[in-house]
Amino acid sequence: MADYKRLGIVGAGSMGSEMAQLFAEAGLKVSLFDVVGSNVDAAVEYADKNDKIKGQVEGFKNYGAFMASMPSPGHRLLLFSITHGNPTDQVLHEIRPHLAKGDIILDGGNEWYLDTERRQKELESKQKVHYIGLGVSGGYQSARRGPSLSPGGDPEALKRVLPLLERVAAKDAEGNPCVAPIGPGGSGHYVKMLHNGIEQGMMGAMAAAWGLLRFNAGLELDEIGKIFAQWNASGELKHTFLVDIGADICTKRDPSLGENRLSDNEDHVLPNVLDKVVQDADDTEGTGTWSVAEAARLHISAPTIASSHFLRLASADRAARLKIGSTLELPDPPVSSRTILTGEEKAKFIDDVRKAVYASFLTSYAQGLQIIARRSEKEGWGVSLQTCLKIWRAGCIIASDGLSEVFQDVVKHYDERKGMSSGDSKSKPKDASALIPAHPALTKALASSFPSLRRVVIWGLERDAYVPAFTASLEWIKYIGAGTLPTMFMEAQLDWFGSHKFDRRDSGAAKTGGEVKKGAVHYEWKPA
Amino acid sequence: MADYKRLGIVGAGSMGSEMAQLFAEAGLKVSLFDVVGSNVDAAVEYADKNDKIKGQVEGFKNYGAFMASMPSPGHRLLLFSITHGNPTDQVLHEIRPHLAKGDIILDGGNEWYLDTERRQKELESKQKVHYIGLGVSGGYQSARRGPSLSPGGDPEALKRVLPLLERVAAKDAEGNPCVAPIGPGGSGHYVKMLHNGIEQGMMGAMAAAWGLLRFNAGLELDEIGKIFAQWNASGELKHTFLVDIGADICTKRDPSLGENRLSDNEDHVLPNVLDKVVQDADDTEGTGTWSVAEAARLHISAPTIASSHFLRLASADRAARLKIGSTLELPDPPVSSRTILTGEEKAKFIDDVRKAVYASFLTSYAQGLQIIARRSEKEGWGVSLQTCLKIWRAGCIIASDGLSEVFQDVVKHYDERKGMSSGDSKSKPKDASALIPAHPALTKALASSFPSLRRVVIWGLERDAYVPAFTASLEWIKYIGAGTLPTMFMEAQLDWFGSHKFDRRDSGAAKTGGEVKKGAVHYEWKPA
Repeated sequence: MADYKRLGIVGAGSMGSEMAQLFAEAGLKVSLFDVVGSNVDAAVEYADKNDKIKGQVEGFKNYGAFMASMPSPGHRLLLFSITHGNPTDQVLHEIRPHLAKGDIILDGGNEWYLDTERRQKELESKQKVHYIGLGVSGGYQSARRGPSLSPGGDPEALKRVLPLLERVAAKDAEGNPCVAPIGPGGSGHYVKMLHNGIEQGMMGAMAAAWGLLRFNAGLELDEIGKIFAQWNASGELKHTFLVDIGADICTKRDPSLGENRLSDNEDHVLPNVLDKVVQDADDTEGTGTWSVAEAARLHISAPTIASSHFLRLASADRAARLKIGSTLELPDPPVSSRTILTGEEKAKFIDDVRKAVYASFLTSYAQGLQIIARRSEKEGWGVSLQTCLKIWRAGCIIASDGLSEVFQDVVKHYDERKGMSSGDSKSKPKDASALIPAHPALTKALASSFPSLRRVVIWGLERDAYVPAFTASLEWIKYIGAGTLPTMFMEAQLDWFGSHKFDRRDSGAAKTGGEVKKGAVHYEWKPA
Repeated sequence: MADYKRLGIVGAGSMGSEMAQLFAEAGLKVSLFDVVGSNVDAAVEYADKNDKIKGQVEGFKNYGAFMASMPSPGHRLLLFSITHGNPTDQVLHEIRPHLAKGDIILDGGNEWYLDTERRQKELESKQKVHYIGLGVSGGYQSARRGPSLSPGGDPEALKRVLPLLERVAAKDAEGNPCVAPIGPGGSGHYVKMLHNGIEQGMMGAMAAAWGLLRFNAGLELDEIGKIFAQWNASGELKHTFLVDIGADICTKRDPSLGENRLSDNEDHVLPNVLDKVVQDADDTEGTGTWSVAEAARLHISAPTIASSHFLRLASADRAARLKIGSTLELPDPPVSSRTILTGEEKAKFIDDVRKAVYASFLTSYAQGLQIIARRSEKEGWGVSLQTCLKIWRAGCIIASDGLSEVFQDVVKHYDERKGMSSGDSKSKPKDASALIPAHPALTKALASSFPSLRRVVIWGLERDAYVPAFTASLEWIKYIGAGTLPTMFMEAQLDWFGSHKFDRRDSGAAKTGGEVKKGAVHYEWKPA
């Protein structure tokens, strides 16, 4: 077991420069490289302001000197904190001549798992260099204080780096480090990708809730901040990172950034934040996009995650929105769009919104876990969903004590069943992932929040609120357990024009559900 | 220009055997091959019952004899009607030794466009054989009478086959054939893929409407059939294929298939059709899946298409649904789930549902056209959306006079603008596709149907109806032209934890919309 004394970090952006300090504080010397020299200077200067690690972070502006500063070949540990895709391949191309058997690279970016596996194969077959896809969750804030980590790759290499990763990882309430080996290949990056997919659904729900409270119910920002703080303090949403920082965001004031166009309180920062979320549309971040594509590819119904993504995409191109808005004159809503609530009615509404958020958080988690489970089953990774839940307990964006409570039994049951059902891997549609939403711990939570979600959605749609994450969650909760869906009409249409065949409702398949395969009957609705 | 006298068809499934008769009736001899011999026998027997073409379709059960029956090398025309992916590669592997320079293959399956392009490159570089990705729309019914065709590939090869394709293609009301060269590479298959994506969204809307009328308003099937027939006869939905066959499906009776569990009228076929739509989930059909993945990949907000897809996926695994339903006990809806309407109220409701369908058809078309446009711009295909609309006028599943009327000006405007903006291909997010929904012909139609859509959604959600295509369309119409979205809260959250940066509302970007790129400001909400 190597005891690493020095870490080489490639990439001195916001994540890389914070991680330089994180590892330095854990006692390592850090060599920091970036293709942009000024990034290196800024990061080193920033680190040197931290008395605890002064001098421990050394900056480099060319690959040769950077690699020469590292320990002897075979004992080097590198951490990439760079943009996925081509930039990572570029860096690898430059650095490969300097690598030797036994060296380990941790790719701490958000990378598409097949690109990670391609690099693993190349490096391991040609140079016996190990490449670990390391999910790093929690943003730059956690990168500084302790992120949630999901490493995947060669088991021996994972063993070698785990003690170090445990030292720097976030710790949950019991002091357990939020890191564990996820599995082989690209599984670590994959789990991080779905962390971000779940995050996307949850952020869609938070935005819907905030919009309802601010624009449609007309609450002041400070009041919303207090409400979010209460939600975070106890109940179903207790200790939920996105709720917690939501409270902070609503109340933050800064005279230099504040303005009062949307707020009755001057100096709030939030009203001056424009509504463009561009990170998917400008291709700087792939995880949101990949999560939606994976849901489709794996045949997992994931509308909460997807609907939040589509809202984000529409938000990004503000110029197009303004152009569309200039010709699309929607009629006024039937009810005044701002409805001032008071007393008991107000309290009940706010609690309904809380439960609508909770319901949508549950659906985001459930959909994301199903995607991880099915990909893991297809790839044979053997990813434990208990491990995923464990590393998400702290340090990451989707961390939530309230959700963990619900899902711990769900994932335990899944992990156990998966152990039993090995050998069934051929019957894909019957894989264990499909039954994740059937666990009583989850269905009970869904059912208890459902009436609130329904009320909030209807209230919001009457006022033309933007609540796609809520409407998508509501539909999903209804149809995933439905005994009779109007898709029987769809199936009949497909048989009419496409001879797609169907199963008869008076056949055995109606009662048991049957296999996910073509029906037995074609009816010649119109002789061809 | 070749005058083909014989066509070799590979694949004698429902599409292949109908197309054998279609081409035989157009005067060609047809050689028909299938790896399953009994399919060949059945198709030839079926063709020989048709007096007009008796003897014109010859069956073959091995590749050698099949290819020997064809004209001399270099003058052969083959049509594949087989499953996408590996099966097509298998057939190509067997048939390639028999091919010669100048031969043309029409791949009439629903193929992923990159697989089509891979085969085009292989065949054209090594054997000078042309491989045309031929979208064939309309199902087996149209395959028999005249499908809508979207061929893409080498321009010279397209020219050679066009006269024949024009003979067999569907004809619109003015007698124009529903076929035209789409563009190079996989563009033909791509357009067919999105035809099916749009179809998916439209079918989601039809299923929602049917479910509301049947289950929630309690209308009899025959009455719904009459309503659909009226919708199809005049007004916004006039001459819409899916509405037309919907009328037929609601009224069709057959004592051998009928049962009365869901219907008060005995002998209807529809109540006996189980609600499982499996073609995506069992991987026999890729187009629905690919359309959703492409929307994500191209950053096009396409929730109508995606939400219908996710409903279909949930419908497919009926066994999982029953299992989930057994533990998920949702509270009763606040209003009786079956509401019998009468008189004026009923007439108004039915008309609202009609307009909700119309709105969702508009959003399906708009989203699908945007996806085609952006992929075409990225690949440099130069696909004309006017051509797409033209070939969709008849013979295919999304054919609709009502929709064509709205979109003809929209696509004309797009095609013209695209012509002017060549050279702008680098500024992807500002491509012309983003502005398709801004055309007044479309925004006027959206605005006029919006109040009905809103009323129908709220009415349905109060009764726990399954209307995801409607809710997704409603949200999309609202947010694509919104001046202020709650995503400002999302953007603030991303900046809080991820230092993602934002644009200030008091900057120029707020007024003009600005570029789709990272904002200029980071606020240190909490010092790292």
